[in-house]
Amino acid sequence: MIFFSFRCALAERRQSSKKLKIMSLLANEDRSVYWDDAASHLMLLDQRKLPLTVAKVSCKTVEDVAKSISTMVVRGAPAIGAAGGFGMAIAAQHNQNLEKAKAILDAARPTAVNLTWATQRLLEKAQMPDCGTFEAILKEAKALAEQDVLINLQMAKHGAEVVPENANILHHCNTGALATVDIGTAIGVIYECHAQKKNIHVWVDETRPRLQGARLSAWELMRAGVPMHLIADNASGMLMRDGKVDVVLFGADRVAANGDTANKIGSYNISVLAKENGIPVYAVVPTSTIDLTCESGASIPIEERGAEEVACFYDTRVAPEGVQVFNPAFDVTPFKYLTGIITEQGICYPPFRKSLKRVKERAEEEIRRNK
Amino acid sequence: MIFFSFRCALAERRQSSKKLKIMSLLANEDRSVYWDDAASHLMLLDQRKLPLTVAKVSCKTVEDVAKSISTMVVRGAPAIGAAGGFGMAIAAQHNQNLEKAKAILDAARPTAVNLTWATQRLLEKAQMPDCGTFEAILKEAKALAEQDVLINLQMAKHGAEVVPENANILHHCNTGALATVDIGTAIGVIYECHAQKKNIHVWVDETRPRLQGARLSAWELMRAGVPMHLIADNASGMLMRDGKVDVVLFGADRVAANGDTANKIGSYNISVLAKENGIPVYAVVPTSTIDLTCESGASIPIEERGAEEVACFYDTRVAPEGVQVFNPAFDVTPFKYLTGIITEQGICYPPFRKSLKRVKERAEEEIRRNK
Repeated sequence: MIFFSFRCALAERRQSSKKLKIMSLLANEDRSVYWDDAASHLMLLDQRKLPLTVAKVSCKTVEDVAKSISTMVVRGAPAIGAAGGFGMAIAAQHNQNLEKAKAILDAARPTAVNLTWATQRLLEKAQMPDCGTFEAILKEAKALAEQDVLINLQMAKHGAEVVPENANILHHCNTGALATVDIGTAIGVIYECHAQKKNIHVWVDETRPRLQGARLSAWELMRAGVPMHLIADNASGMLMRDGKVDVVLFGADRVAANGDTANKIGSYNISVLAKENGIPVYAVVPTSTIDLTCESGASIPIEERGAEEVACFYDTRVAPEGVQVFNPAFDVTPFKYLTGIITEQGICYPPFRKSLKRVKERAEEEIRRNK
Repeated sequence: MIFFSFRCALAERRQSSKKLKIMSLLANEDRSVYWDDAASHLMLLDQRKLPLTVAKVSCKTVEDVAKSISTMVVRGAPAIGAAGGFGMAIAAQHNQNLEKAKAILDAARPTAVNLTWATQRLLEKAQMPDCGTFEAILKEAKALAEQDVLINLQMAKHGAEVVPENANILHHCNTGALATVDIGTAIGVIYECHAQKKNIHVWVDETRPRLQGARLSAWELMRAGVPMHLIADNASGMLMRDGKVDVVLFGADRVAANGDTANKIGSYNISVLAKENGIPVYAVVPTSTIDLTCESGASIPIEERGAEEVACFYDTRVAPEGVQVFNPAFDVTPFKYLTGIITEQGICYPPFRKSLKRVKERAEEEIRRNK
């Protein structure tokens, strides 16, 4: 009963949160991804409109979910995974073929492995005896979402250990509660450090072209009262050279067996700059983001997105009409630039091929035990 | 008669341009900075509004010029220098104290040395016998502007020698005709390579926060028919790692005696990434940008600009209300990341302390000879 055991763990955490004033958790309907039990469909916070407008999108069909993923209503590898899980439940709700539904969902965004990991897990569940009903599949999708929160709490604890007191943290993209079911990956570590009163300060880079840093991370961190400054991506190098960055934290969309890490475009730039300036770099990821079937970063598919993301700004054109644009959504940071990879099973250090395999096995063992 | 000799050289160049179809030159009233003889005031192309709107701003007082510089109606170190020169002519036109006018103009933007270089040159001219009249000072300001064009043509020729056939060039900010009186510095080299049919292609980075790449360089290069793609600044590293960049070219706002180079924020990032990937990096600058009184980059003042440049986009808010922003306009690239510094007097290679001194002396000798 994985679902209920996670519920218990979270309830406990919530209580201790109140008592110790450490990290607070969102109510179900304040999450970026949640199942609306009354209406019996998936609800997503529309992240394209934040922080100007807080709006929600309801998903009643598999196609609704796939479209919400591809248009980035929901984004962030763990949040996409959770949404994909609920997408499979919707397929079961309408008595649709689950393999076909999985194919539609998986195609929505190619780089984040959490999506296929989640849909695969739901498919396997459905193929177990007496588990093919909508109720059973929805229960598993909910368990997967709850598990994400617990995993993030574990990552946050591990990650906080590598962040010194009074640290200036450079953070890329959005990896907080919005990118996950709650808490976050790299921002989860930041929340934990803040809760531990480590007196941290965050440089939030704006993360062009989609501005997840300026729009989402700034919004989350300001609400949580974490001291921060927003910067243009171009200012990260200067800050590092001036000794104003102590550690770099980001999430990831897929980690290959050798530790090569695909993450939001610009992560490679930051990692090279950090190495040049002797600053540690950590990717913070659930083990579901580790894909041991990818030998190295060279076999991770990199999504290219539309020209208008760079050429326009909301509805305003910036670049001339007809401009040619190259707009890759992700880049690969070779493992040699990473100090460590923080997971819910502990921190992986080089050689990553060995340490990643170990945490991945441990996580799979845990899932098997709980089934 | 420096003014007339430059005019002659340009007229010759214009003719040969037509014949050889190499590089074309703008008419006076198509320049970003020019003196309107009929109205007897300075005209500036409003670069804040490009490419959506082509509008001009007229400057009739020293304060008008200073405000146009600080608000970036006119930007780009050489263009700011030319505008500063005309600002001094306006002071003479109104019988104002030239030293006070110089102080007002110099304070408009602190990083680019071309501004103080130009106002100093005009002040010295005015202090020569029979040169204190408005006519004489305006003539010198015009000569300075014409000289900029000739210098850019010389830089373009030198620079084209280091760009191989079929090169992919990565370019930062705007350094073209808009950043100068005509032709440009780094983009001048690009125009020359294109004119020489070198089959080049340019990666134009958008250059957050002011988007000089997306708005201005894309506009210029598209008009000139130079093959290009616009990219987010974050995509530069990936392109370099994928072997898709052969050379990096940018301008500069001030070069210190040791070769440390202050340029638009993000130049340092690109330079570190290029070095890591074995790609040559050249700064393209007139000798007026070299400041031998600055020992190193540490003594170059770095301008910080307003929060709204990062937090807003035109009139649309992006980041949450009240967000704290750190917005440096420039960074310093230490000399060790530069392959060479291209000037109108030839290309400087390390040790820069020696080679920069040599070209600076040669340029000053030339100015003295022409006086």
